[in-house]
Amino acid sequence: MIPASLVLNAGSSSLKFQVFEPGEGGAPRRIFRGLFEGLGGSPHLLIRDGAGAVVADQRLGEGKPYGHEEALLHVAAWLRAHRREHRLAAVGHRVVHGGLAYSAPVRIDDAVVRELERLVPLAPLHQPHNLEPIRIVRRQFPELPQIACFDTAFHRARPEIAQLFALPRDMTERGVRRYGFHGLSYAYIASVLGDYAPALAEGRVVAAHLGNGASLCALDRGRSVATTMGFSALDGLPMGTRCGSLDAGVVFYMLREMGLDADQAERLLYTRSGLLGVSGVSNDMRTLRARTATDPGARTAIDLFVYRIGREIGSLVAALKGIDGLVFTGGIGENDAATRAEVLRGAAWAGFTLDEAANASGGPCVTRGPGPSAWVIPTDEEAMIAHGMHDVLAEARQPAL
Amino acid sequence: MIPASLVLNAGSSSLKFQVFEPGEGGAPRRIFRGLFEGLGGSPHLLIRDGAGAVVADQRLGEGKPYGHEEALLHVAAWLRAHRREHRLAAVGHRVVHGGLAYSAPVRIDDAVVRELERLVPLAPLHQPHNLEPIRIVRRQFPELPQIACFDTAFHRARPEIAQLFALPRDMTERGVRRYGFHGLSYAYIASVLGDYAPALAEGRVVAAHLGNGASLCALDRGRSVATTMGFSALDGLPMGTRCGSLDAGVVFYMLREMGLDADQAERLLYTRSGLLGVSGVSNDMRTLRARTATDPGARTAIDLFVYRIGREIGSLVAALKGIDGLVFTGGIGENDAATRAEVLRGAAWAGFTLDEAANASGGPCVTRGPGPSAWVIPTDEEAMIAHGMHDVLAEARQPAL
Repeated sequence: MIPASLVLNAGSSSLKFQVFEPGEGGAPRRIFRGLFEGLGGSPHLLIRDGAGAVVADQRLGEGKPYGHEEALLHVAAWLRAHRREHRLAAVGHRVVHGGLAYSAPVRIDDAVVRELERLVPLAPLHQPHNLEPIRIVRRQFPELPQIACFDTAFHRARPEIAQLFALPRDMTERGVRRYGFHGLSYAYIASVLGDYAPALAEGRVVAAHLGNGASLCALDRGRSVATTMGFSALDGLPMGTRCGSLDAGVVFYMLREMGLDADQAERLLYTRSGLLGVSGVSNDMRTLRARTATDPGARTAIDLFVYRIGREIGSLVAALKGIDGLVFTGGIGENDAATRAEVLRGAAWAGFTLDEAANASGGPCVTRGPGPSAWVIPTDEEAMIAHGMHDVLAEARQPAL
Repeated sequence: MIPASLVLNAGSSSLKFQVFEPGEGGAPRRIFRGLFEGLGGSPHLLIRDGAGAVVADQRLGEGKPYGHEEALLHVAAWLRAHRREHRLAAVGHRVVHGGLAYSAPVRIDDAVVRELERLVPLAPLHQPHNLEPIRIVRRQFPELPQIACFDTAFHRARPEIAQLFALPRDMTERGVRRYGFHGLSYAYIASVLGDYAPALAEGRVVAAHLGNGASLCALDRGRSVATTMGFSALDGLPMGTRCGSLDAGVVFYMLREMGLDADQAERLLYTRSGLLGVSGVSNDMRTLRARTATDPGARTAIDLFVYRIGREIGSLVAALKGIDGLVFTGGIGENDAATRAEVLRGAAWAGFTLDEAANASGGPCVTRGPGPSAWVIPTDEEAMIAHGMHDVLAEARQPAL
């Protein structure tokens, strides 16, 4: 039997999963990726194999409640039916918040679950959804080892000064700090940077994870030294529907003058702001790009996104004390040549020279000349989780000294 | 009779005032500056003449309520008694918020007062205190022209993109925008920059107003193109007791997990954060500098202040697309050579080379070598108000075309 690793990334009504088997030298190789959407109702399931071919495309659970538990049982049964030579050997989870305790993947036990529950107030909109499949797997497959991989972990080693808010010390001590997120994506970028540009692996690089969520990370010799996200997933760059950097005074204004309660204000900042709020059109960069000619709000939203990226690049150049390279990743970073071009033109002050043709064709290098270089590198957070699982389990198999 | 201009800067329990007379070519020349502290109780009053000599130093109102109205009547009477050849001819006010309407000083009438009242929700902790002396003067001295000068006005001409939050358009339209403050200070710096370094008046300069309140402003040929403060006086740099940039998620955490209401949370962010909160020692940079050897919190607070200044300088360099000069002003900027040295060493990446000796002796130029230069320039917000009053009243005297 071939041991298969299942990687899960759970949202409120969605479940992304990927299945890996041991490849060359034991390193994980992806054999399936799937997505349930609309959990809680009648979800849709799409599964592709390692080559990208659709191997399942169906609606599930018509007429009865179908949630994360049903979805997980379905994945296990589907895998048994479709890959009889594989045996589910471990489950890895993307967990948004690892707090101060976790700076690397960790094998989940009772104590870890308690610690992750303790962190719910730090990420009330994400952490509970990450915990649910952990509990389900513990209940349904108690023998399966589970590993948690954290969006915060990669940023834990930043200098302390980059992790502090200017708040009373008792608040800092209870965990109100700049954690930073998208760490699995940045860890992946750092791990492959040398394959693209060997010098950058030892240099000063700003990585731009630009998707529906968006942030930047300053990498010094592959380690995070600063990042634009802070305590929650709201801060830093404007995103599809999230506000990015906001004066705290705006929240008090929303509570007092707009008559919102905390939940309503928070929902507005998470779901009705960002590209969607500014454009009044869409949270999707593709839609906005298609409508700039007819809708001035679409143009403004894009311009603000690019402007804020430019400002934050400057802030991270200061953290790095210079810049050798810039990496674009995430849905927008990998696919929207226009955003890349606008960001690089705005960063000409730092020495970047856009290579129009290379950028239009997707790079990987999208600059030319002697200055710092910019690259398009597709991210792969699930591969990082699979690698993290592999490392945690390999270490557990080492004989004790 | 010599017409005297009275410049007022009112806080909740304080009133700063300065008196100007026409100097060379009619330009305002300061003859007195004074400060009431402890209004509402038994305030202390200190007045100095134009040369800095103390001409009054007294406690007032023992046993009876003594507020802003009593203070203003006292100033008028004191001036009549001490400068019999002067006649109070106009009153100028520092007003924190001019909203979208005011990008220059304005003569106050009923409509202006209504507009300034309308802006109270945008600056609930400051605007009411600025309005009170305006109302008192209208009541006690209805014949005196009054002019309002705004902390926001200098920033009104920034590119629109620098003024936007990534919020729904209806919020932007109702005035939730990045206004920026300390505009009178930056306008003053811009007005004298050419006297220190002619090339900088036409160049790209970051001005650092570092006092108990603190912000940075990017000046492109003397005009503000970006600034670190936003909607309220909370955002941007950490300050004496204010938090500076904060993830909006922290406010929701304070409301939910710390059990604070909006007023308590806001008070904590305005009065118990910043240098005071981080150090646990003091909001005063002089005290912190004196205690770094014995109190690690003092060192951390200073390091965080300097680190955040460095990050924001980077962000403003991006807005300016390069940098030719840096100006230090405000209480810390003008007097704390150690902060200047730390900031400039951190900004070596942008080409600054600290001149240790010049910095220790207060400059005005505190860098050497061929890179961008840095300067110490004392600010004078009251002089800007006096000039603004002069211009508004001179224009009013012009015959209509």
